[in-house]
Amino acid sequence: IQRNDIDAFREEFLEVHPYDQARFYVSQEQDVRQQISSYLSPSEMAELFHNLDSEDQESTLEEMEPAYVADMLAQMYADDAVDVLNELEKDQVVSYLTIMDDEAAQEIKDLLHYEEKTAGSIMTTEFVAILANHTIKNAMKILKSEAPDAETIYYIYVVDDEERLVGVISLRDLIIADDDKLISEVMNDRVVSVSVSEDQEHVARMMKDYDFLAVPVLDFQRHLLGIITVDDILDVMEEEASEDYSKLAGVPNFESQDHSAFSAARKRLPWLIILLFLGMFTASLIGRFEEILSQVSILAVFIPLIAGMAGNTGTQALAVAVRGIAIGDGDRKSKMQMLRKEIGTGLIIGFVCGILVMIVVDLWKHNIVLGMLVGVAIFTTLTISTMSGALIPLLMHKLKIDPAVASGPFITTLNDIISVLIYFGLATLLMNYLV
Amino acid sequence: IQRNDIDAFREEFLEVHPYDQARFYVSQEQDVRQQISSYLSPSEMAELFHNLDSEDQESTLEEMEPAYVADMLAQMYADDAVDVLNELEKDQVVSYLTIMDDEAAQEIKDLLHYEEKTAGSIMTTEFVAILANHTIKNAMKILKSEAPDAETIYYIYVVDDEERLVGVISLRDLIIADDDKLISEVMNDRVVSVSVSEDQEHVARMMKDYDFLAVPVLDFQRHLLGIITVDDILDVMEEEASEDYSKLAGVPNFESQDHSAFSAARKRLPWLIILLFLGMFTASLIGRFEEILSQVSILAVFIPLIAGMAGNTGTQALAVAVRGIAIGDGDRKSKMQMLRKEIGTGLIIGFVCGILVMIVVDLWKHNIVLGMLVGVAIFTTLTISTMSGALIPLLMHKLKIDPAVASGPFITTLNDIISVLIYFGLATLLMNYLV
Repeated sequence: IQRNDIDAFREEFLEVHPYDQARFYVSQEQDVRQQISSYLSPSEMAELFHNLDSEDQESTLEEMEPAYVADMLAQMYADDAVDVLNELEKDQVVSYLTIMDDEAAQEIKDLLHYEEKTAGSIMTTEFVAILANHTIKNAMKILKSEAPDAETIYYIYVVDDEERLVGVISLRDLIIADDDKLISEVMNDRVVSVSVSEDQEHVARMMKDYDFLAVPVLDFQRHLLGIITVDDILDVMEEEASEDYSKLAGVPNFESQDHSAFSAARKRLPWLIILLFLGMFTASLIGRFEEILSQVSILAVFIPLIAGMAGNTGTQALAVAVRGIAIGDGDRKSKMQMLRKEIGTGLIIGFVCGILVMIVVDLWKHNIVLGMLVGVAIFTTLTISTMSGALIPLLMHKLKIDPAVASGPFITTLNDIISVLIYFGLATLLMNYLV
Repeated sequence: IQRNDIDAFREEFLEVHPYDQARFYVSQEQDVRQQISSYLSPSEMAELFHNLDSEDQESTLEEMEPAYVADMLAQMYADDAVDVLNELEKDQVVSYLTIMDDEAAQEIKDLLHYEEKTAGSIMTTEFVAILANHTIKNAMKILKSEAPDAETIYYIYVVDDEERLVGVISLRDLIIADDDKLISEVMNDRVVSVSVSEDQEHVARMMKDYDFLAVPVLDFQRHLLGIITVDDILDVMEEEASEDYSKLAGVPNFESQDHSAFSAARKRLPWLIILLFLGMFTASLIGRFEEILSQVSILAVFIPLIAGMAGNTGTQALAVAVRGIAIGDGDRKSKMQMLRKEIGTGLIIGFVCGILVMIVVDLWKHNIVLGMLVGVAIFTTLTISTMSGALIPLLMHKLKIDPAVASGPFITTLNDIISVLIYFGLATLLMNYLV
């Protein structure tokens, strides 16, 4: 179908949603890809291009001529173009911006300044803004003419002479309202907005809570700089969820599917090597108790049980705390509450598991002292590991470090050390009764 | 301000976004809450109510009169009302539905049938649908009259005489189009839709990929049953991310903030007790090697290191695989690829860590045989634990079990057992050289 008939191909292809176009595009060989892009105008290509993975975007850019790329980027929504450019080398960015038409280049340059993961970095400047003294009828006319370029037309922002945001009106209200009314009469002047330097995760939570389709972004003088639309927020939520998840597992960012085993190993190894040396430290701690171990070798049998349970309870408490911080308002009172609750939880869990272990070990080894030793060690370590699992992310949050950095493996290894110290400390005390 | 002047309170209160109304509402004492609800009409209360947590919703319902509740539920979007009712006892649901007006009750009953977490359970029936032979002008008129009741008016669905979906037109296109054209001329007849029994996670991924604000839900004969709007998808994404995260940490669902330590412990304990017995099993395995241990007590020193590293690599591989399955298309080829990649990654990680440990142990203990033993054990266990971390979720996916069920602690404990067997198996072989 594509070999010869451009028109037939275009007609068929452009009827499909750009996401499906993109999937078809990447599944083709390079020469077919180049043929497709030659059939499409830069603005048609822009829609397809927006739906590619960032890796596919890079390789696609290399296959296309710079002038075509510049045209295409200019046709994309400015925020999406900025996402693409952020992945490229500095000199590539400059060269594309140089050959781009001035207006589009300026819009993109303005957005490139904002720090990653802030509201500024995900906002777009293609919004509809009008003055408050228009009539509804007039506003509809303006909307009609601006609609093709705006990323959303479902909210119209009302500004004063100095571009300061004074109100908002949804297209829904606009449609319901009488034609002759003034915008100022029907607009909502309590606009919920975000600051340009706001964290993207905060913006996402806000849009979820308020059920917004878009939110305006202001500078500190309340000038309207841009808007953030809900489709970008879906991406942010996916990204942040992925990040929290990967940190809990101790994987620094997720590798994409097509990466090789080598690059996957290279990403995971640094963490593992740190943990390895922490593990060696644990080993050296146990080494100090070698004498006891050689006399009461049965002690070794319960090391993985105690260390493992400490790791499990610590990870549970960590996950609950990280999630609690992410969802909660994070005021000091609720944090103290959370900590107090976790201490209580740790005590209960420790008590139940401790008693259980004591009974089982007692029945199994017919040794009450050993049973008590392991039981008390479990009780103490589980209480402490639950507490530390909650305390560490709370402290990090207080120190303005992302609490999710305290990954699962790190907490687990820390709790290994604590549990070994407690276990052998107790064993040393009970030494006389054990031999 | 609230004591006396109803009108002033209403004016002030209703200007605020319902989400903020809800936050104010829950922060008040019971008598103030009842006063507020008496000031508001059921439909005003419905908007506030929709923004409460499900726990606060339950306690609020108990404070209100059944007739008021029924009125309020009828005023909510049907999908939101269903969410509320799903949390209640069967007989409560029936009693509310009985006193509700028939039309609203019927809509809610229809939605209550759908299984949880399917497209049907999150869809709403308040959408705008028209026939294809209307003109644009006519369609705008219909829209204007239906706008107040519809959950979104930004997509208008086009149906045939038998309510089968034949096309869609966005409000944006409607506004840009000429007044006299027919809907059938401007509508898009390639509508992306979901089936009513589709998993909600799949719907969320689709809306994210296609940047939709709403998606139509069809039965198997392509009758239009409802739509799913993006605000519900934000909630779904949050819910699913929370779920994956909690499973990786081995916490069955997240407790909400205000739960007590007792209920938190009760939720975490079942898992911990299972893991405790698995840990006892590991202990009994080590017990079989007690004789070797009593002769070469230094062996015990490295047990937590090896078990810990196996747990860490297993969790990493698990997280990557679960995420890969969630994001990927899940076809067989890419799964085989993923598995092959993880085996490669495991071999590399095992090799690097094994060599490192061998060198460190050798330098520390001046014992080449011990260094080799620990090094080879690390190499073997890390390779196997990486592989099992990837293989188990892939197998679960194949068996149609949610791969996220294979939680971190479970994989960790499994890898504990494997690593202990390998370590002591090797130690037995090398026994003669170690003593």
